[in-house]
Amino acid sequence: MTRMTILTEAELRRIVPLDREAVDCVEGAFHALATKAVAMPPILRLDIPEYRGEVDVKTAYVPGIEGFAIKISPGFFDNPKIGLPSTNGMMVLLSSRTGLVEALLLDNGYLTDVRTAAAGAVAAKHLSRADSSVAAIFGAGMQARLQLQALALVRPIREARIWARDAAKAEATAKALAEKLGFPVKAAIDPKAAVTGADIVVTTTPSEAPILKAEWLQPGQHVTAMGSDAEHKNEIEPRAIAETTYVADSLRQTRRLGELHHAIAAGLVAADAEFAELGQVIAGLKPGRTGTEEITIADLTGTGIQDTAIATLAFTRANAADAGTTFES
Amino acid sequence: MTRMTILTEAELRRIVPLDREAVDCVEGAFHALATKAVAMPPILRLDIPEYRGEVDVKTAYVPGIEGFAIKISPGFFDNPKIGLPSTNGMMVLLSSRTGLVEALLLDNGYLTDVRTAAAGAVAAKHLSRADSSVAAIFGAGMQARLQLQALALVRPIREARIWARDAAKAEATAKALAEKLGFPVKAAIDPKAAVTGADIVVTTTPSEAPILKAEWLQPGQHVTAMGSDAEHKNEIEPRAIAETTYVADSLRQTRRLGELHHAIAAGLVAADAEFAELGQVIAGLKPGRTGTEEITIADLTGTGIQDTAIATLAFTRANAADAGTTFES
Repeated sequence: MTRMTILTEAELRRIVPLDREAVDCVEGAFHALATKAVAMPPILRLDIPEYRGEVDVKTAYVPGIEGFAIKISPGFFDNPKIGLPSTNGMMVLLSSRTGLVEALLLDNGYLTDVRTAAAGAVAAKHLSRADSSVAAIFGAGMQARLQLQALALVRPIREARIWARDAAKAEATAKALAEKLGFPVKAAIDPKAAVTGADIVVTTTPSEAPILKAEWLQPGQHVTAMGSDAEHKNEIEPRAIAETTYVADSLRQTRRLGELHHAIAAGLVAADAEFAELGQVIAGLKPGRTGTEEITIADLTGTGIQDTAIATLAFTRANAADAGTTFES
Repeated sequence: MTRMTILTEAELRRIVPLDREAVDCVEGAFHALATKAVAMPPILRLDIPEYRGEVDVKTAYVPGIEGFAIKISPGFFDNPKIGLPSTNGMMVLLSSRTGLVEALLLDNGYLTDVRTAAAGAVAAKHLSRADSSVAAIFGAGMQARLQLQALALVRPIREARIWARDAAKAEATAKALAEKLGFPVKAAIDPKAAVTGADIVVTTTPSEAPILKAEWLQPGQHVTAMGSDAEHKNEIEPRAIAETTYVADSLRQTRRLGELHHAIAAGLVAADAEFAELGQVIAGLKPGRTGTEEITIADLTGTGIQDTAIATLAFTRANAADAGTTFES
């Protein structure tokens, strides 16, 4: 008999908001990735082209953390036509000592949203200037909203611009964020205007062609690209990667899936070029930003350690709050 | 909101016994593997050496089947010391059209036992002589029992021998099987005696050194090796692979994990040598057994299509029987 806790999306939204502790737990996971014998196998990916579907399965074991998550992330891009969200999914939390299932986190992708936004905050905390106060967000979806909220947890943001291809959506997102965050958030008419004068730029789109030009970047800016989690996605002009201080969440992944992949494909960066990883910067093993005029880019493709970290936080909080349903099998 | 069905091990044992329909569904999966654009990504594997733990995640999409399973199989080999089984796990069944989770099959490994035994029956049905009546089983664990039961579904078995390193365990398993199956099942004193005169030999052990010698094999015999699902496992003397008619469940897997892997490592078979796969034999695309004197070997490492097939059968039967618990998230 295995006893496990089942947590629904509603319960998880209640007990794991995007807060400073979520950011800290993801920061700790990146630190562990650089300093411990973390096991993070390559992502398992299944494609179902008939239905424009794809499924990623990620996992990672971090020594010292009691559990590890296996995350199932489906993306089925015809779903909106029948009134369903295109992404959903769940996590299974297993005991690191026994392999027994401890919790089923039926989050429909919510925890991924939180840990992805938290990683953006971690990147900004370690790579942007401490006085960064103006943010530009590319995209107007869920991650655009969460990334700005996450930035505001770690930097004194007092103004933000939202740029998206769909101007009406950018307008609506800007309005909602201004109300939520209590500082001015405006929709930008064009992407260059959004970037000019910003301290931090976060790209959150599924774009397959660069939407951020290298020539727009200004001294002292930090850019986080979190839209590229597949080979064909590309938000940043490859030249920018070669000309700035580049940091990966996982080099093994960004060489294959991230913005770096496109810079390598364009012949601007050697395939085996070494760069710092975010965890190494956090742990002080490699430099990140070394001056106020430097331009930094964080390339985030999403890692299994973030899932293990957020799933563990969710389970700990569920136990403390006596939340969820106990199930035996 | 996603609505899913949760099925416990007890419910799954009731609705998915090892029967002819289970064998047919696994046979259909192998047929599809050879004839359809099946997507079966490499196994995701995570090792946790601190606790002698390992986790495999397998999946496969078969066009025409409404769902696909993602199976999580942990093996933690220190668990018995604290009174827990070393293997357990669960399957998640997702819709092939939308990627939504349809069912959580909390089987603690039971469905894997069934689909593995069913694959043994499929191999025997297509590779052993139709008049095979004497079976020899190596090993005395759960798979030893289930493999003999599965053989009896497809061949007119009237006598069986059980050989295991632990003679007392072989004795107990033989006794239990004789009672269950209604024909004589005896423990064999040595492995050679078990093989001599047998029509079908099934090896089910976790052995890391060959326990079945090539010289023991006799004309007309069929051997199914189902114990090797990892690089270090090896039940059959590599020379036997080179000298008989060899069939893989998945060549991509057996070249890396199966008995074939050891024959390649020993230099007896070329790394890129072509062999028939079980699905190709079922579909008539490649020959299997071509005469009564031929010796055939089926090398089964376990495939994601078997999981998708058995999970789909379980879900169909659960719906028909209105079994399980509905959960919304």
